[in-house]
Amino acid sequence: MNAGIKEILKKCGALSYGDFVLSSGKRSQYYIDIKKASTDPGILAVIAEEMAGTLSSNNVRFDRIAGVVLGSVPLAVALSLETGIPYVMVRKEKRDHGTAKLVEGTFNIGERILVVEDVITSAGSVADAITTLRNGGAAVETVLAVVDRQEGGRERLEGMNVRLLSLLTAGDLLGD
Amino acid sequence: MNAGIKEILKKCGALSYGDFVLSSGKRSQYYIDIKKASTDPGILAVIAEEMAGTLSSNNVRFDRIAGVVLGSVPLAVALSLETGIPYVMVRKEKRDHGTAKLVEGTFNIGERILVVEDVITSAGSVADAITTLRNGGAAVETVLAVVDRQEGGRERLEGMNVRLLSLLTAGDLLGD
Repeated sequence: MNAGIKEILKKCGALSYGDFVLSSGKRSQYYIDIKKASTDPGILAVIAEEMAGTLSSNNVRFDRIAGVVLGSVPLAVALSLETGIPYVMVRKEKRDHGTAKLVEGTFNIGERILVVEDVITSAGSVADAITTLRNGGAAVETVLAVVDRQEGGRERLEGMNVRLLSLLTAGDLLGD
Repeated sequence: MNAGIKEILKKCGALSYGDFVLSSGKRSQYYIDIKKASTDPGILAVIAEEMAGTLSSNNVRFDRIAGVVLGSVPLAVALSLETGIPYVMVRKEKRDHGTAKLVEGTFNIGERILVVEDVITSAGSVADAITTLRNGGAAVETVLAVVDRQEGGRERLEGMNVRLLSLLTAGDLLGD
C-alpha cells in the first residue's frame, strides 16, 4: 500500500468515508472522486511520480502510455511528462460525427502499451480500450490504476492476459 | 513570433507545407497536426513552458485553466503542472448518457479562468466553452492558443471581450 497517496486523497477530499450508494446501486463504505485529485496539479504530480516508481519496481517495460477518455487522459499526460514516454488517448466509443477515430495519437505495430486508469471497478471500459489497442496491433500486458476497487477488475484483466497494478486497493482504503 | 516552437513543430512533423485541402473545403499552404506535437512529452513540455512565458510577459492573471475536450486537455494538464494552477475540462456538448456535465473539475464563482486551445480557426468551439464557463459564474478574459490561424477567431473573441494570445500565427508560419 501507498500510505502517502491515501493521505493525500483524504486531505484533498477525493476520498471520503461514510455510507454511500454508488451509481450501480451498490453500497460502499468509501467514495472516491478521483477528478478532485487529478485536476490539482500538486496531487497529479505526486500520483505520476508514484506511478513511475511502481512501474520501475515492477520492472514494467513499455513503449507508450494510453489513457481512456476522458478521466484517465490527465494521468496519461502527467505520466508521459514524468517518464518522457509518449501517450495516446483511447475513446470509449465511436464519435457520432466526423471521422470515427478511436485512438488519438499514433503507435506502431508491436509496441508495448501501458494502459493507465484512475479507478478500476469491473474494468469494463479499460477492457474495451485494450481490445481497441490490440486490434490496432499493440501489445498490452499491464494496466496501472490509481485505485483498484477489487470488484472483479483484476480477474477480468487476468482473463485477457493483462496484469493489474495499482497504487491503492479497496483493502488499503478500508484498512488502517 | 516564437521561432523555437515553429522549428519544433516542423521537426516533429506536426507542421507541414504544401497545398492542402482542409476539412472545411478551404485550401491552405500549411497543415498543422497539433496532436503529433501534444502527444510527445518533450514537445508538450516546451509548449507548456512557452505558454507560461507568454502569460507572464503579458501579465495575465488567472485562478484556473480550462481546456476544451479533447484536443486541448493535454495542454491544460501540462500548463497546470508547469504553473501549479488547477484546471478544468470543458466538454463541447452534453453527453448523451449519464449526468450531463459540461465541466469536469470545479471552480468558484468569480474566478478568472484562462482558456487554452491548440489551434484557433474561427474560434467556434472555444466560444462555446467560454459561454459555458461564464454561465457557471467564471470570468473569462483571455484565450491562449498554440496557433492562431487568423481566420476570424481573434475578432470573434474580441466581440466577447476576450483577448486572444498565441504562440504562433498563420503569418508566422508562412513567413521566413
